[in-house]
Amino acid sequence: MKFESPEFLKNIASLIKSDFQGNPEHIVTGLNEIHMVEPGDLTFVDHEKYYEKALNSKATTIIINKKMDSPEGKALIYSEDPFAAYMTLVKKFRPFKKADKMISKTATIGKETIIQPGVFIGENVVIGKNCLIHANVSIYDHCKIGDDVIIHSGTVIGADGFYFQKRKDKTLKFESCGRVIIKNHVEIGALCTIDKGVSGDTVIDEYTKLDNHIQIGHDTYIGKRCLFASAVLIAGVTRIEDDVILWGQVVVNKDIVIHKGAVVLAVSAVDKSLEANQTYFGTPAVLASKKWREMAMLRKLPEMYNKLV
Amino acid sequence: MKFESPEFLKNIASLIKSDFQGNPEHIVTGLNEIHMVEPGDLTFVDHEKYYEKALNSKATTIIINKKMDSPEGKALIYSEDPFAAYMTLVKKFRPFKKADKMISKTATIGKETIIQPGVFIGENVVIGKNCLIHANVSIYDHCKIGDDVIIHSGTVIGADGFYFQKRKDKTLKFESCGRVIIKNHVEIGALCTIDKGVSGDTVIDEYTKLDNHIQIGHDTYIGKRCLFASAVLIAGVTRIEDDVILWGQVVVNKDIVIHKGAVVLAVSAVDKSLEANQTYFGTPAVLASKKWREMAMLRKLPEMYNKLV
Amino acid sequence: MKFESPEFLKNIASLIKSDFQGNPEHIVTGLNEIHMVEPGDLTFVDHEKYYEKALNSKATTIIINKKMDSPEGKALIYSEDPFAAYMTLVKKFRPFKKADKMISKTATIGKETIIQPGVFIGENVVIGKNCLIHANVSIYDHCKIGDDVIIHSGTVIGADGFYFQKRKDKTLKFESCGRVIIKNHVEIGALCTIDKGVSGDTVIDEYTKLDNHIQIGHDTYIGKRCLFASAVLIAGVTRIEDDVILWGQVVVNKDIVIHKGAVVLAVSAVDKSLEANQTYFGTPAVLASKKWREMAMLRKLPEMYNKLV
Repeated sequence: MKFESPEFLKNIASLIKSDFQGNPEHIVTGLNEIHMVEPGDLTFVDHEKYYEKALNSKATTIIINKKMDSPEGKALIYSEDPFAAYMTLVKKFRPFKKADKMISKTATIGKETIIQPGVFIGENVVIGKNCLIHANVSIYDHCKIGDDVIIHSGTVIGADGFYFQKRKDKTLKFESCGRVIIKNHVEIGALCTIDKGVSGDTVIDEYTKLDNHIQIGHDTYIGKRCLFASAVLIAGVTRIEDDVILWGQVVVNKDIVIHKGAVVLAVSAVDKSLEANQTYFGTPAVLASKKWREMAMLRKLPEMYNKLV
Repeated sequence: MKFESPEFLKNIASLIKSDFQGNPEHIVTGLNEIHMVEPGDLTFVDHEKYYEKALNSKATTIIINKKMDSPEGKALIYSEDPFAAYMTLVKKFRPFKKADKMISKTATIGKETIIQPGVFIGENVVIGKNCLIHANVSIYDHCKIGDDVIIHSGTVIGADGFYFQKRKDKTLKFESCGRVIIKNHVEIGALCTIDKGVSGDTVIDEYTKLDNHIQIGHDTYIGKRCLFASAVLIAGVTRIEDDVILWGQVVVNKDIVIHKGAVVLAVSAVDKSLEANQTYFGTPAVLASKKWREMAMLRKLPEMYNKLV
Repeated sequence: MKFESPEFLKNIASLIKSDFQGNPEHIVTGLNEIHMVEPGDLTFVDHEKYYEKALNSKATTIIINKKMDSPEGKALIYSEDPFAAYMTLVKKFRPFKKADKMISKTATIGKETIIQPGVFIGENVVIGKNCLIHANVSIYDHCKIGDDVIIHSGTVIGADGFYFQKRKDKTLKFESCGRVIIKNHVEIGALCTIDKGVSGDTVIDEYTKLDNHIQIGHDTYIGKRCLFASAVLIAGVTRIEDDVILWGQVVVNKDIVIHKGAVVLAVSAVDKSLEANQTYFGTPAVLASKKWREMAMLRKLPEMYNKLV
């Protein structure tokens, strides 16, 4: 997330009651996890194994659990528990406030947009013009929805990313502070979930159309003119380029890329990046032509067995 | 969809500002896509490849993008973009109106029926007697629900069918004008979606019971006394006869028939029509007995490999 | 279910207008189906095949469709239709009452708990302190939720178990009278369903975290610190021990046990009990290492075929 206005290092450090190394006036413009950082961002690192990665990342402020000199152009904040310190900052800059009505006073809704009954719209949500939001949809704080968007009943936009760390006696939550951004002319079916980014944004680009019961995990980007059939599940942190078609109940792993124009046939599970303009099938998904051959070969198995015994 | 009262050809043509060939008093009784048409219906055709099919269909009025003589007993309306002209008619005869309260004034609700809080009921919905509609259900305009029906929380009845045409720069929506019809003694679990027909009806017949998270696509017919376990997904335009049992997470392709009394075991994917009173399993689903043999054979593969090398 | 205060045999029998054999002052403390019974419970049996099981069960009162002497310490109630008689009692002791507002007057909600707009909370629900219940969640009557619990939008807690008996001309519902119990520090994603127990409780234990679109069937127990990814489906009456991880779209059969610390990889279908601390994959799920070998072997099939022909 980006702060509404930049913060000074000394202010940030004081919020988490920590010492720092760097210019007190050093500027911090936002919070981001290590995989997503940009210059100006603050991130954290709590394990020796990842020190190098964090210190060499684009982040310009790092919360770290070791005393050391700060690298050129970066500031360090010392904390015995960088994870907890970072979560404190997330909650400070993205506080959750109880809503007192179905449509927040701070929401902005464009002309000719129809909001049906039972729709919840959280703080600072922006919805464009000429949209149709059907009954009982829930839109969490800070989401942005473009023009000419249709969202069907029961769909949930902007719930927290599923991101937990298992400890011995409990599970710790990595608090989400990102957003969901839905561009113009998108249509989302009934009972879908589009999770907010953990620290960045989950984006659905123009003219993409989703059927019902679809799950889009945190920090996913979905390109233009994609068509996803019912019950498609995108785990998160995945990039799906323009004109991709996913048929019913396709599952897509995290951290991969599905390139432009790829088609994945129903009930497939995609565990690796896919090339452009090819058709895939199976668990794990491979080129459909290869899968058909494999299935034909399987049908010859009894014949093969009989020759062998 | 059927019009509330029949329309004359000349009126229909004037709505889309088009020339026509036929008796101006020729009667049009409803709108239907080419796969579903009945006498009296208007349909459209926009590609040479399908001219014959449309002209020989049961439709008695056809919007077409070629000047020609009208066949015996049929009327033609000329349009450069028959798809757009047809969508104009759908929107004209099934206009969407913003709802101003959770339960529409035009809805009819039978005696002893309980509507829990947070339920949305759209225009012209009819609900029979002795039903129980749990909290936060959404029922779109024009749906019809019989007597003694139970619908659990969060379920969405009558959202639009997922039916889009991909063009170079955008995706065009085929607007739905059909309905959902739920017969007596049906029970539908929580968080299910039953989509309306694109131009006909989606029907769930008597005593059928659905578990949670089920998707029934547009223009599907489901017979009597069927049992569908959790997360079953019916793609649409499929006919499922009486007494069919589908276990958890079964996926069924569009445009097929599952005959009376068939059983499909969990996590199967049905891509072809299935015979009556047989048990099926697998992806794609085959007779379960055949699938068990195939799986037994697979377990012999290491033994076979060792004999060969 | 347990009665609020114990009932005498004679009272119970009079509610279903039936004769009984046993001390009229014999005490009945609750209702339970045969698989779950404890001393004090009343259960029913309607088929000769199960008479022995019912008569030897821990149930101390049995509705039965045969006249016989009651075993030591047990009471019998005679009925021509024990199923219908039992359902009459369920409805008598767990009557459904129409709610007149989103949050029932009989619900108890702890300090610092935030209930967002559009949330339905039924009769006798108890919610602990410091919880966050997001918009449009539905919580059925009698559910119990601990402290520090988060439930995301659209989720449905306590809908009826999916439990029907097929008869020739109809399907009979086994009415649920159990509850859902959610312990402290649990987080449940958006659009999940946690069904109530049919006669016992469905339990989710401390620090367990569920992603979106998850289905937990009736009478399931889920241990501490489990993590379930999106679209996991637990059929019901299953025991999942502590620290189990289920990845996306995993399906788990009913009546099994997944032992402590087991991990099941995405899109697997678990049909048998799983051992502790092992990783499983596939349909049906087997040890992942075994599945990898099987998949490697399949890739050799064309080579094998070529050697044979």
